[in-house]
Amino acid sequence: MQLQDMSKAELSAFLEEELAKYEDFKGRGLSLNMARGKPSDEQLRLSHKMLEAVGADDSLKDADGTDCRNYGGLDGISSAKKLFADIFGTSEKEVMVFGNSSLNIMYDMLVKAMLFGTGNGAKPWKDCGKIKWLCPVPGYDRHFLITEKLGFEMINIPCDENGPDMDMIEGLVANDGSIKGIWCLPMYSNPTGITYSDEVVKRMASMKTKADDFRIFWDNAYCIHHLTDTPDTLLNLLEESKKHGNEERVYMFASTSKVTFAGGGIAAMSACESNIDYIRSMITVQTIGYDKINQLRHTRFFKDYNGLTEHMKLHAKLLYPKFKAVSDELEKELKPLGIGSWVNPNGGYFISFDSMPGCAKKIVKLCKDAGVVLTGAGATFPYGKDPEDKNIRIAPSFPPIEELKLAAELFCIAVKIASAQKLLDE
Amino acid sequence: MQLQDMSKAELSAFLEEELAKYEDFKGRGLSLNMARGKPSDEQLRLSHKMLEAVGADDSLKDADGTDCRNYGGLDGISSAKKLFADIFGTSEKEVMVFGNSSLNIMYDMLVKAMLFGTGNGAKPWKDCGKIKWLCPVPGYDRHFLITEKLGFEMINIPCDENGPDMDMIEGLVANDGSIKGIWCLPMYSNPTGITYSDEVVKRMASMKTKADDFRIFWDNAYCIHHLTDTPDTLLNLLEESKKHGNEERVYMFASTSKVTFAGGGIAAMSACESNIDYIRSMITVQTIGYDKINQLRHTRFFKDYNGLTEHMKLHAKLLYPKFKAVSDELEKELKPLGIGSWVNPNGGYFISFDSMPGCAKKIVKLCKDAGVVLTGAGATFPYGKDPEDKNIRIAPSFPPIEELKLAAELFCIAVKIASAQKLLDE
Repeated sequence: MQLQDMSKAELSAFLEEELAKYEDFKGRGLSLNMARGKPSDEQLRLSHKMLEAVGADDSLKDADGTDCRNYGGLDGISSAKKLFADIFGTSEKEVMVFGNSSLNIMYDMLVKAMLFGTGNGAKPWKDCGKIKWLCPVPGYDRHFLITEKLGFEMINIPCDENGPDMDMIEGLVANDGSIKGIWCLPMYSNPTGITYSDEVVKRMASMKTKADDFRIFWDNAYCIHHLTDTPDTLLNLLEESKKHGNEERVYMFASTSKVTFAGGGIAAMSACESNIDYIRSMITVQTIGYDKINQLRHTRFFKDYNGLTEHMKLHAKLLYPKFKAVSDELEKELKPLGIGSWVNPNGGYFISFDSMPGCAKKIVKLCKDAGVVLTGAGATFPYGKDPEDKNIRIAPSFPPIEELKLAAELFCIAVKIASAQKLLDE
Repeated sequence: MQLQDMSKAELSAFLEEELAKYEDFKGRGLSLNMARGKPSDEQLRLSHKMLEAVGADDSLKDADGTDCRNYGGLDGISSAKKLFADIFGTSEKEVMVFGNSSLNIMYDMLVKAMLFGTGNGAKPWKDCGKIKWLCPVPGYDRHFLITEKLGFEMINIPCDENGPDMDMIEGLVANDGSIKGIWCLPMYSNPTGITYSDEVVKRMASMKTKADDFRIFWDNAYCIHHLTDTPDTLLNLLEESKKHGNEERVYMFASTSKVTFAGGGIAAMSACESNIDYIRSMITVQTIGYDKINQLRHTRFFKDYNGLTEHMKLHAKLLYPKFKAVSDELEKELKPLGIGSWVNPNGGYFISFDSMPGCAKKIVKLCKDAGVVLTGAGATFPYGKDPEDKNIRIAPSFPPIEELKLAAELFCIAVKIASAQKLLDE
């Protein structure tokens, strides 16, 4: 029986039962953190051998002879540019390889747009008055934090299984020149797990924008993070944009943070050549170059794109059972009751759960009080404000599977309690 | 005989002789680059063993248990904070360890001052109208490039063997609130090799500034790069500033770029705790954290500050003969002629040469045409403009010593030619 169909008396009995289970859980002294998408120990061990891919008896030269120990090579070493060109599906001339954090690159690109504009002769955004920014929701809290800090007015864009609402986006960007860009996590999105449809990508590439310095921040963080044998596919935004002469609107980002080591990986961006030329001229003011030895370490370890995809299969093998453990529990415990919805993604790092409206904060608190920390409710929305208080991001990667099962069990109990209390209060 | 004392006829004969030597050099097909302060192959090899300081069978945990493979630890790992606290002569709470580039940290700090101000409630510099910046000259081209790019008006401050002209600085900063800061390379300065005297440091610490968000960018790049057994000493600016309640004006920077690998090192800053708290709150928007594995690699390799200073002695052993080769040639060839001045530094990476006024560009061009690339004349001044066209930065570290001797020989010939031509033209 669905929870909505229960009488008050049935609901009360149901609630009492779940509260008893909850108290039992509280007594177990759990201490689990599912707040962030952290790789597990087993996943990290997949890359330990990379630490020996460069060594003391090594020339430390890239295949083209570049000495990775010394200054120079702002763009990244050739082998790393090649690897990321294959990841992005673009050319080496359209790639720069940076330091350890793609988030930092995104921040840098926005800071440069603010202070210097997006290209030679473009007006710095700091001199453009109020800047607005489109935020498909639910989305990645750290994206939103950057645009909040920069003082942009963030506009929520609802998403469905195909990606963000393109009718809404097209209408907004065509008429409002103060809208300068959009955050996109186009593949196995954080947190919803969905991948943008071909139509969404094509409309992003072709849409008319009033601001001629509009930028799509295409954070392709999970483009190689497939979980199943039936991976999603994503159209190449840069290629699509070229068909309409809109290639300068595209900034694509990726990293190996969840491929090798979180924080010890390498990150890159891809954009059209004129953008790359401009970005290089900006970056050259800021640094002499990034860590080429770590770039070499990575390309020696993976050899090529094929080696990288084989490595990702090892991650999937470790991750898939964890995603399945959570979704199995949700299917078993919540589906029959009709008190929530979620997507079982084909890749990425998260399961996005939508509770009944007004229950997310309560569910997160119930879990926390019983020793399971989830991403804060609201975090997946700009300003931390989920207008319906219903979205919760579940990050199953880090805990060992037995603990994860317990956490999922507790989560379902918390959802049941919050849902029953809400229905009783109505 | 000094060149100035020669008759025109003597000068002409002298010039002819040197031009003949020059043509001979040109015929040798030299190809040497002394433009940047790059470590040599032998120096870089001193750190190859560091690449094995962490390995595949390793826990990759810092002494305090921090897992360096995963997210977290924005400040840097404890052992790295300790090492840099010892380098700076400050406490671990006053240190943050970042990525591979101290220049990038300086850039970030200026960008943050522009967009958000220097502390909670401080006015962003972008809203302060014209910003002026003090630039002790000659100085580091990459410092000046950052402040030029940000649109600051740079003011040249002359230096002598004690550091910048403090009378001038005190007069300026006391009366002009648009002067927001100063670049300092206080020890073995780039390029002059001098170290600021105690009096200069004390006056920097105690001076009154009209701007209450005035910042001293104390780039202590060469603080452990001694060349001789009689190293210079530098007073601790942060400690001195505390005596006057001026500690918030101090940002100190250092890195291992010329200690381990150029671009593959680690960089840090030190500042008072209130500054560090504010900076942390800014950086947390920009990145989840820096490369902790590379931090661990460094602290495992050096063990502690003592290990680091022992390592620096190995560098000195390789570098000192190169500095001596250049200064011996200058002493032998130029001193008797009275056509230039230079400092033989106790540390750092450069010999700063002052030619007769109006000769630097010509000397650099003569060298280049004969196959020896020097730092561009003028580069050591803001906007690349040396008002007297006399300063040339010589970077002796990179070439093998035999090539260096040839380059120094050529350099002296070029100085002689340019000086004689100048005197003949007068």
